[in-house]
Amino acid sequence: MKINTNPVRGTRDFGPDEMLVRDYVKGKIEEVYRSNGFTKIQTPVLENINLLQGSQGGENLKLIYKILKRGRKLDLTKDELREGDLVDMGLRYDLTLPLSRFYGNNSSDLPTPFRSIQIGEVFRAERPQKGRYRSLVQCDIDIIGEESELAEMELITITAKALLALQFTDFTIRINDRRILQTIIRNNDFQEENIGSVCISLDKQDKVGWEGVREELLAKGFDAKNIEGLITELKDLKQSGRDGFQQLDVDKDITEPLMDVMETVNSLAEGQFRIIYDPTLIRGMGYYTGMVFEIDSEALGCSIGGGGRYDNMVGRYMKNEIPAVGFSIGFERIVDILMDEKFKVPNSQKSQVVLYSKLDNYGQLFKEVMSLRNAGKRLVLVPKKKKLGKQLQQLYQEGINSYYLWEEGKLLEKSIKD
Amino acid sequence: MKINTNPVRGTRDFGPDEMLVRDYVKGKIEEVYRSNGFTKIQTPVLENINLLQGSQGGENLKLIYKILKRGRKLDLTKDELREGDLVDMGLRYDLTLPLSRFYGNNSSDLPTPFRSIQIGEVFRAERPQKGRYRSLVQCDIDIIGEESELAEMELITITAKALLALQFTDFTIRINDRRILQTIIRNNDFQEENIGSVCISLDKQDKVGWEGVREELLAKGFDAKNIEGLITELKDLKQSGRDGFQQLDVDKDITEPLMDVMETVNSLAEGQFRIIYDPTLIRGMGYYTGMVFEIDSEALGCSIGGGGRYDNMVGRYMKNEIPAVGFSIGFERIVDILMDEKFKVPNSQKSQVVLYSKLDNYGQLFKEVMSLRNAGKRLVLVPKKKKLGKQLQQLYQEGINSYYLWEEGKLLEKSIKD
Repeated sequence: MKINTNPVRGTRDFGPDEMLVRDYVKGKIEEVYRSNGFTKIQTPVLENINLLQGSQGGENLKLIYKILKRGRKLDLTKDELREGDLVDMGLRYDLTLPLSRFYGNNSSDLPTPFRSIQIGEVFRAERPQKGRYRSLVQCDIDIIGEESELAEMELITITAKALLALQFTDFTIRINDRRILQTIIRNNDFQEENIGSVCISLDKQDKVGWEGVREELLAKGFDAKNIEGLITELKDLKQSGRDGFQQLDVDKDITEPLMDVMETVNSLAEGQFRIIYDPTLIRGMGYYTGMVFEIDSEALGCSIGGGGRYDNMVGRYMKNEIPAVGFSIGFERIVDILMDEKFKVPNSQKSQVVLYSKLDNYGQLFKEVMSLRNAGKRLVLVPKKKKLGKQLQQLYQEGINSYYLWEEGKLLEKSIKD
Repeated sequence: MKINTNPVRGTRDFGPDEMLVRDYVKGKIEEVYRSNGFTKIQTPVLENINLLQGSQGGENLKLIYKILKRGRKLDLTKDELREGDLVDMGLRYDLTLPLSRFYGNNSSDLPTPFRSIQIGEVFRAERPQKGRYRSLVQCDIDIIGEESELAEMELITITAKALLALQFTDFTIRINDRRILQTIIRNNDFQEENIGSVCISLDKQDKVGWEGVREELLAKGFDAKNIEGLITELKDLKQSGRDGFQQLDVDKDITEPLMDVMETVNSLAEGQFRIIYDPTLIRGMGYYTGMVFEIDSEALGCSIGGGGRYDNMVGRYMKNEIPAVGFSIGFERIVDILMDEKFKVPNSQKSQVVLYSKLDNYGQLFKEVMSLRNAGKRLVLVPKKKKLGKQLQQLYQEGINSYYLWEEGKLLEKSIKD
């Protein structure tokens, strides 16, 4: 029987070429983050199931991979078994919950504010499709313990720097503060308990357009006049950008930090990217409390990162409330884009080939090879094929011009054209 | 209710200091492996449960974490539920099985021989104890498709080089060929079907001593005279080392490659480490077919790596048999040792602190900071505490002599002794 050697559905194997790109992207991002004062932490991919299921992960909670209990803890004889009887752990679905747990467990040993880098795998039992994976690397930076907009400025600027270091340009950062949108909705005579539902519909504006939003709000049974007022105000705001933004009937303690962030980031961008105000941006996660942001690549027409402030989350794992802001880069999307573009990692060194035939004793050959390696040569040992010409031709096509041949107890460098 | 913020039992969180060491160890090992012609691959931590359970993992098969089926695939109403009805995937328990599956799936796109680096997490539901973890990083190199002892020479030499690069010295590599031990057992009149059982007892010699081995073999009911003959021969061999080894009544096609490997590795070691013949070394894994090896640290009295040839395994996932040899470094043990020794990563740069007080607008401060960072400074933004003296004293104790202060719209560098 032929064994199925494909990776589990929705997951991927990475060969040498793709690993070079993945490691390069990780390395570049981490280098930028580290040089701006962030430090790396790592938590296990396994978490207790109660912690995962009791978290504010929204739709992601439905996608948790659960681990079967083991040994005597697993009792299959019980009547009316429920899933909860069978599992005690799960695989993490994001890195924000583990960070919050980690910070709650270690805050006394960590600096304030704490600036973390996390690069790690998360798991979601999604329906597999192009660009959507069940096992994926996330790449997050977070600042815990900084209540001012310095945190947002820093995360946005540095994430943009990481993208620039990867030669991504021409991207736009959209930014909003959820509380501004909530106030606008309130001022258009929607009821307090409906604000969440209206937000969900508005968040779809970039996909379904204003007409789609209007239809959905009407279908939800809201007053047509209120809907018109809301949409007109938001449309105006979106067009007028920062100017209209200054006219807003919203608390200055909310609008001024947002303007400060936009002004500062734009000035540091030096025209290499843009930050714009998007009055309908919400981002799905229920835990965001203030500013939210998203990076879109114009050229690629997709999001390559996002984040926001979540001031009420980390405190759930501690005695005190503590402010927090995070930004996640779409690592898998960036790698997919680079792979599609046939990106070559700069300065990735090619090895030279050492060809040999069957020997009684390989020690002498290996010692010679090690002595060349110690002198800085990158060499790979490969048995000489019967059809040497063909073997050399293949090397030549890979851009290699010379090779070593082990003949009569000597290692000789030869040109492939010889 | 206080939420439990500990990591899952048997797993660990890694803070900034430990991550520096972990990344340093990974980096050094990978650098040595890459510069010797190996290339990195990566497979998912999830594998199909049938693949895991049908593998030659020995005792590890009992330690597999299993993933609960999802959605309609999970039927809890069935009578007499078995574990097999409930799970479809598991977490990998090592990196050798995934490598074999990967190679079987991709061999036509890979060079021959294929030299792989894998650095990845594996999972085992072990009873947690000091130095034994349920989630751990393994660090493997393998050569697939090289039948000669060049593969063993290369893996052993390069693994030793990686350890030397990490400043580990004074280690001993023990080596054996399983087929030699099997022949010796056979020649001492044990029956063919008992060879495996005798090997299992002999493998414990370094832990229980010869007396312990003798007792266990007697308890298993083997002939006392055969046992004495076997133990005497092995003891002699262990003492005489390579000289006695040359007198062995074993096929030269088995002994000469082993001697070749020992002679070559010893000559390349230049006295920095040793390789010795250990006639009772087996190593647990059922899939090894020829040479096996293990690295012990004398100073630490523990194993820090091991491997062997497994010529009949990768072929299970392909149409043809293909030879393979692997070597795994005990990554977690190495990190534990370095952490215990309070190892400091060389050249890990410290950041300077920028102190600021509450402001109406943080943009100007942040722009100044970014301009210093662009000039190469590593800076961390930290709010100024009320007790500035105490805050500065702490920095001074961490070895930091100066800081920046944001005052009246200017960033001034100050000496802490001021």
